[in-house]
Amino acid sequence: MFAVLTLNCSDKRGIVADVTQFLYKVGGNVLDSQQHREELGNQFFMYVKFDIKDLTCTRKELQEDMSSIATKYDMQWKLSFSDNAKKMAIMVSKYDHCLYDILLRHKYGELNTEIALIISNHLDLENVAEHFGVPYFYIPRSRANKEEADQKALELFQSHQVDFVVMARYMQILTPTILNEYHHRIINVHHGFLPAFKGAKPYHQAYEKGVKLIGASSHYATEELDMGPLIEQETARVDHSYCVEDLVRLGRSIESKVLADAVKAHSEDRIIVFNNRTIVFS
Amino acid sequence: MFAVLTLNCSDKRGIVADVTQFLYKVGGNVLDSQQHREELGNQFFMYVKFDIKDLTCTRKELQEDMSSIATKYDMQWKLSFSDNAKKMAIMVSKYDHCLYDILLRHKYGELNTEIALIISNHLDLENVAEHFGVPYFYIPRSRANKEEADQKALELFQSHQVDFVVMARYMQILTPTILNEYHHRIINVHHGFLPAFKGAKPYHQAYEKGVKLIGASSHYATEELDMGPLIEQETARVDHSYCVEDLVRLGRSIESKVLADAVKAHSEDRIIVFNNRTIVFS
Amino acid sequence: MFAVLTLNCSDKRGIVADVTQFLYKVGGNVLDSQQHREELGNQFFMYVKFDIKDLTCTRKELQEDMSSIATKYDMQWKLSFSDNAKKMAIMVSKYDHCLYDILLRHKYGELNTEIALIISNHLDLENVAEHFGVPYFYIPRSRANKEEADQKALELFQSHQVDFVVMARYMQILTPTILNEYHHRIINVHHGFLPAFKGAKPYHQAYEKGVKLIGASSHYATEELDMGPLIEQETARVDHSYCVEDLVRLGRSIESKVLADAVKAHSEDRIIVFNNRTIVFS
Amino acid sequence: MFAVLTLNCSDKRGIVADVTQFLYKVGGNVLDSQQHREELGNQFFMYVKFDIKDLTCTRKELQEDMSSIATKYDMQWKLSFSDNAKKMAIMVSKYDHCLYDILLRHKYGELNTEIALIISNHLDLENVAEHFGVPYFYIPRSRANKEEADQKALELFQSHQVDFVVMARYMQILTPTILNEYHHRIINVHHGFLPAFKGAKPYHQAYEKGVKLIGASSHYATEELDMGPLIEQETARVDHSYCVEDLVRLGRSIESKVLADAVKAHSEDRIIVFNNRTIVFS
Repeated sequence: MFAVLTLNCSDKRGIVADVTQFLYKVGGNVLDSQQHREELGNQFFMYVKFDIKDLTCTRKELQEDMSSIATKYDMQWKLSFSDNAKKMAIMVSKYDHCLYDILLRHKYGELNTEIALIISNHLDLENVAEHFGVPYFYIPRSRANKEEADQKALELFQSHQVDFVVMARYMQILTPTILNEYHHRIINVHHGFLPAFKGAKPYHQAYEKGVKLIGASSHYATEELDMGPLIEQETARVDHSYCVEDLVRLGRSIESKVLADAVKAHSEDRIIVFNNRTIVFS
Repeated sequence: MFAVLTLNCSDKRGIVADVTQFLYKVGGNVLDSQQHREELGNQFFMYVKFDIKDLTCTRKELQEDMSSIATKYDMQWKLSFSDNAKKMAIMVSKYDHCLYDILLRHKYGELNTEIALIISNHLDLENVAEHFGVPYFYIPRSRANKEEADQKALELFQSHQVDFVVMARYMQILTPTILNEYHHRIINVHHGFLPAFKGAKPYHQAYEKGVKLIGASSHYATEELDMGPLIEQETARVDHSYCVEDLVRLGRSIESKVLADAVKAHSEDRIIVFNNRTIVFS
Repeated sequence: MFAVLTLNCSDKRGIVADVTQFLYKVGGNVLDSQQHREELGNQFFMYVKFDIKDLTCTRKELQEDMSSIATKYDMQWKLSFSDNAKKMAIMVSKYDHCLYDILLRHKYGELNTEIALIISNHLDLENVAEHFGVPYFYIPRSRANKEEADQKALELFQSHQVDFVVMARYMQILTPTILNEYHHRIINVHHGFLPAFKGAKPYHQAYEKGVKLIGASSHYATEELDMGPLIEQETARVDHSYCVEDLVRLGRSIESKVLADAVKAHSEDRIIVFNNRTIVFS
Repeated sequence: MFAVLTLNCSDKRGIVADVTQFLYKVGGNVLDSQQHREELGNQFFMYVKFDIKDLTCTRKELQEDMSSIATKYDMQWKLSFSDNAKKMAIMVSKYDHCLYDILLRHKYGELNTEIALIISNHLDLENVAEHFGVPYFYIPRSRANKEEADQKALELFQSHQVDFVVMARYMQILTPTILNEYHHRIINVHHGFLPAFKGAKPYHQAYEKGVKLIGASSHYATEELDMGPLIEQETARVDHSYCVEDLVRLGRSIESKVLADAVKAHSEDRIIVFNNRTIVFS
């Protein structure tokens, strides 16, 4: 049982000492800590994972005491506990490779999360959800009804107490209805090496350009299509002999990988977004 | 001693049989052959490397006979001989990593080429040229005199019978004077994952975007900046902790690699350009 | 619809011309051909994929005519037809990641094979087989009964006309009963970078050695444990912070990949074994 | 200007707090800190990089105060200062690729070290040393005189105050004379993926085994050949078409890379050896 604290603020001498001293005093044992500093904006970032089995105060007191330190340094911060796994919603369309990948990793215990539900605009993958025992909700979605569809999805998220959303090749552009409610908590996977090949048919674009590596990128979804903060990227080597279908085939594994890495990092509270870039502690 | 034949034409049954039969008849022994087919445009591409030590005709006759076959199929084709190594010119500015890399690979016998000369708009790297015993020509270049500078360079290329040109981080945009004369025979390296991060300061662009992999791309230089046919690309993993200087440092090795691979492929006549894409036989 | 011809023999001038000329005469259109030559033993290897839709002879005649050429050059050869997909058996124990990976790739049409059956020494993965609609046979296996178990498996292979066998983390050492019957047609995956870390608990061995990359290897199973001809290998970066469980987790994806690549290459008749090494045409 | 503190000891609550608090009190500003824990042996490892420009005590006092903390926890520890660059000796034979790589990286400012001297058992690379302005000492070495040769080398190391030694493809087995004096301070590069392919001619071994990836490994040299603690490893993809010479060619870049990474990590005091494994902080 451990807790994770992430924070960022203007850099100043003494932050690390103050934070670790505080944790020591309340019986926390630092298991891992990482720092980062950005020259631009003189910003300091910190990640601390600490054992809480010998905690000498309540979690509420921990929160309050940490709040005092945060005020002193004007910090953005977050504190979470390992026994309080995040609840995840998955949105899918018809492609199942990212879905299988996440469900299997979850089954293997790689992701400390709970998969609350799967939402799809198609019925195709209901049997996959069933196979893994996850509730599946079919919400058709068209240009005409997308507001209502997202409203319905949002209600499901809320009734299931969903913490974050994973677009596992959902292939739809979410409306602000959901985006605003889950700011920097919606993870999307794009089948291109962003910022190249934004938007539709990235593999066709890549083929025509004659690239020698294809890419996949996971990022937080924002209103601007495929422009949210990048979380993970991966490439795979191709050559002239690969037709578009080959790129699609090869792409499946790197899409699955970058999405899974992003889901794992987010669920373990290892990501801080700053200036549209992500700090992803390892 | 071997020869390399590359060709492309509209696809038709019988090409492979005709070509290999012809080579057999004149005493050539096929060492390696590769084909490629593009659905779009029904285009056929072929690479044949064949031993010529038992050739029963002269090289001139070989050329003429091949010419007849080429006419029959309306082929683009090229025939070269291994004992007739290509002459290469290198253009550099102040960065030396790609230059060292090429000179060392040449020394190790990796590149079947002759390094005819090095041209630079600075004096900085003259000692490197000296160390490796390659003639070095200093041609200052500014917005004002770039036409003359390129004219001078072109004259040097011609007097040295240069076959192809390598821009080893030359950091200058060549004028049509050279570009037209050496169409698809000028290899450039760009320190970004094209088509992303074209133009100036790609590592700064990459940093700001917060990419998780940086890239380097080698391509044939054309009039449109960083848009010529891609030859090779490579990426290297980075994270939030890499500042721009770190990207520059890490980039050196992938820049060197993609440029060297392109130089090797070009010098071995393994590249055909079609529809602004390269077919690079392996 | 196409056919694939693979062959090897002592190198001699004229083989490529003879083979391609022969194919041309019977109406075959070469789609792809690759050659390889080993200095040691002066051995020549060839792969030809050719379109057979305009074939002017029967398949039987094709076989016979090819047989004459083969006799002339004393070739080892094989001819197969794309509409005659190979039948594959999968053997599994309790780990399901390689099994899911193969079943999904099969579903996506990546593997031109038929999955005839799954055999396991445990009941655990029956529901996976069911989910994908593949027959599942439970054959318990212990030190005492392994001969009978393998005999049973072999009978199932034969009654299902199985062409090749995939050990998807079967974790058992097959007896000669099966090995001899399916010589160089049984593909195994080992979770180590062979020849390092042979045998049991390779991830523990790797951890203790403190390697900085872990590996996975697919190979043809032979009587000597983990010593059969290597087909594909892959590595993944690790560091001191990875405990054995982390290596196991990370290993899943590279194990799946090397096994899938081997299955694909074998099912497409792209592999020739010579001197305990594999030639894998691309 | 900064300092680096590395330490390890049995794990206990309070270490991180104590160390960071101590640094804070003397005016150090933590720039980066990393921890690691090994279950086996309950061992705790720590790396702290801290700014010392506002230090309120002398460096000697810093050492003394740290010594008290170390005593309290029974720590192994080391403290170094960035303005006190380590002095490196390079040992080479006839291969120059690792040598060029290190000299260039040093020139680019990638390595915070001073290159004190180069020692070789051949005269071949003297001109490389000259080109980069580094003293070169020729010490012939044979089975008969290796003790004297190493004695001579050791004397040169001592007279040049050498902190650590880099065997840049030195291809000689050092005697205990040097090994004992520079325990865990001699970095070697082996052109094989250790623990596979130890000893002589690893590329020949790899070729015969038919591996699909070749590897290179950097490690601390110890008395047992190629068995010292691994520091970095890298692999490169090959296939059946690569002959031994191709492996040698391809190997040059991964050998250079793993050696350079090891030199950089060692010179920045980011490595701790424990149980024959390295902890390499990033």
